[in-house]
Amino acid sequence: MDYTAELREKGKAAKKAAQQLAITSSTIKNAALSAMADALEKQAAAIIEANALDLENGRAKGLSNALLDRLLLNVPRVKAMADGLRELAVLKDPIGEAISGWRRPNGLEITKVRVPLGVIGIIYEARPNVTADAAGLCLKTGNAVILRGGSEALHSNMAITRILATAAETAGIPSGAIQLIETTDREAVNALMRLNEYLDVIIPRGGAGLIKTVLENSSVPVIETGTGVCHTYVDVSADLDMARAIAFNAKVSRPGVCNAMETLLVHKDVAGEFLPMMLAEYDAAGVELRGCEKTRNYHFKVKPGSEEDWAAEFHDLILAVKVVDSMEEALAHIRAYGTHHSEAIVTGDYARARRFQQEVDAACVYVNASTRFTDGFEFGFGAEIGISTQKLHARGPMGLEELTSVKYLINGTGQIR
Amino acid sequence: MDYTAELREKGKAAKKAAQQLAITSSTIKNAALSAMADALEKQAAAIIEANALDLENGRAKGLSNALLDRLLLNVPRVKAMADGLRELAVLKDPIGEAISGWRRPNGLEITKVRVPLGVIGIIYEARPNVTADAAGLCLKTGNAVILRGGSEALHSNMAITRILATAAETAGIPSGAIQLIETTDREAVNALMRLNEYLDVIIPRGGAGLIKTVLENSSVPVIETGTGVCHTYVDVSADLDMARAIAFNAKVSRPGVCNAMETLLVHKDVAGEFLPMMLAEYDAAGVELRGCEKTRNYHFKVKPGSEEDWAAEFHDLILAVKVVDSMEEALAHIRAYGTHHSEAIVTGDYARARRFQQEVDAACVYVNASTRFTDGFEFGFGAEIGISTQKLHARGPMGLEELTSVKYLINGTGQIR
Repeated sequence: MDYTAELREKGKAAKKAAQQLAITSSTIKNAALSAMADALEKQAAAIIEANALDLENGRAKGLSNALLDRLLLNVPRVKAMADGLRELAVLKDPIGEAISGWRRPNGLEITKVRVPLGVIGIIYEARPNVTADAAGLCLKTGNAVILRGGSEALHSNMAITRILATAAETAGIPSGAIQLIETTDREAVNALMRLNEYLDVIIPRGGAGLIKTVLENSSVPVIETGTGVCHTYVDVSADLDMARAIAFNAKVSRPGVCNAMETLLVHKDVAGEFLPMMLAEYDAAGVELRGCEKTRNYHFKVKPGSEEDWAAEFHDLILAVKVVDSMEEALAHIRAYGTHHSEAIVTGDYARARRFQQEVDAACVYVNASTRFTDGFEFGFGAEIGISTQKLHARGPMGLEELTSVKYLINGTGQIR
Repeated sequence: MDYTAELREKGKAAKKAAQQLAITSSTIKNAALSAMADALEKQAAAIIEANALDLENGRAKGLSNALLDRLLLNVPRVKAMADGLRELAVLKDPIGEAISGWRRPNGLEITKVRVPLGVIGIIYEARPNVTADAAGLCLKTGNAVILRGGSEALHSNMAITRILATAAETAGIPSGAIQLIETTDREAVNALMRLNEYLDVIIPRGGAGLIKTVLENSSVPVIETGTGVCHTYVDVSADLDMARAIAFNAKVSRPGVCNAMETLLVHKDVAGEFLPMMLAEYDAAGVELRGCEKTRNYHFKVKPGSEEDWAAEFHDLILAVKVVDSMEEALAHIRAYGTHHSEAIVTGDYARARRFQQEVDAACVYVNASTRFTDGFEFGFGAEIGISTQKLHARGPMGLEELTSVKYLINGTGQIR
């Protein structure tokens, strides 16, 4: 089916809403966010009911436990969504901020001010809490949004969007500001990616396949997000207790998210002391291990790792492990298989810490901390729309500022050139 | 012919160079820029000789005078290119700048630092001075560049690139940092637009056709630049002498560039006083006039304006003129035909000036000044790579900062989540 006409209608409505939203006051936007939060909590039962249908379908389709966990909504998670909106409401509105300003020798006064992007398309998978996050962040920043969630979460997303859009409109937000594409047909995504007339940017959130499809087919500008093949490199000079805590946390605390570690790199000189206990800990936590030849010497349950494993974003309790001869080998491995998301070194050596941070080409480069901190909330942004893994416009956790553009206001007294 | 293999080689060399360039000191980069400037001047004769060949071919192909002017290089213009590079050399290097930094409650220290984009592809038309501008800006910001100039300027561009690349290498810049695609075959552009493995961004500079082609076909992220259907709106409350000076300058001072005005909008209540003299002035300056019915009442030489004229970027001494009934009609016209580049109002009314700047959705919105100021040099950036007309990453004149990305450095003491 061709959704072009339907999408154009949504685009037109969104663009019209965006024109109004750009000059809507913070007071109204914040009141709307609070009303949306209240509505989510009041109607939590309806959301959870819709979610139960999605979970049932997901189980029938044989989704992994990690994916089912990403899909699950319960009262605490609905409350977390609502709290996210309330946190947004009290954050400073970035729109209208004068970022810089100066006077030119000819007397022209130039002011660079922050404005909304306009209309944002967000294509995402699995996690339905993204629906509320995305709608809230876009509204706060004066942008209209067209959401396209994962087919697994369709019923949850429809329930959430309906509740949010109704609450927003009642609070004075123009109709069309928050819309959802209510079909799981992929053709609708194709139409969305060609909606240049109405869309200013598309943000895909999800697995490598989704990102690649959008990058290759969208004529609307794209912010690439989400794919995280993150590494932790345990250096020869590492505090091994610290390394064990970090490496365990990075893999096990929430394996289904993009900032989870997928490959552990260990310097050969500490492998003998570090790996036996580390691998046993992983095994006890139910982590499936896939390693290089050397790694396999340290634990009997380590399966042979393949080229695919080095490149994989498992999104599950699976870990690739490699013993490296040198820091250079670790850097080369990250260069070859990393996705420019989050990379960590555990080291006690100043020069190596500095070199790792300079040479690793990623959005977030950690020394002595878990990659799991790559997150808008953990960074203190109040929320996040995703983790950008490209270099254009935004890189790393995207919060409010990353959803804005700028405009130059130039005031003169008749200047000509 | 398929240029994929050839382009991949260029891309590989550029990416390798970019890795080194990212950690090359400002001292070396600035010395290279100075050496490049000196080399251009010393070898001006060779550049002008190559340019003469391009001009000859251009005349034979029947290029307009405006286009031939854009193509022309002479000693002052070569000196201007060299001076542009020297101005870059003394500008502050943006790379390594700590943009912001903070400590989280858990003790994590986060620093946002400025890094190069990596490898930039620049596709441009006509003006060969862009070759030196682009190479200099990319080098200053630690980026490798692959240039693809207009077929009309091939010989000029080859001469300039050869001189620049040689001077840069001699000064310690890695080979591969400055490359030109030395063919006029369009297939080479197609290969460039699919070079995601090596390219971080493509910047097209030129007419609407080029921009559209790149936007629709590039899987590499694009910064849209250059198309400027700029308007000047003469409001009912305008100082008409000021309006005449601004409107004349915006069209006539350099009609072949993107910040030149293409359509003049005049409020009906001042049209009778303003237009007869204004139109006579344009006519005396050789400007071809195309206007609405009302405009045609004020000067016998005004031809009927068509829908195409309202949407046209003439790049020549041609002007579309429309009398509007209200400011609302002017705003609606700009919304319908503007390209989000530069728009100006001439007014003495505070509220209308403010409203125009708020409601017009363009990179640069002027009150009482000529649109011709939308330019990196005029803004005080030291140079420019183009004028971005999109909202993502950069908007308006792009200088050094617009050619950079960021990276988060996170330093901990064993933090886990």
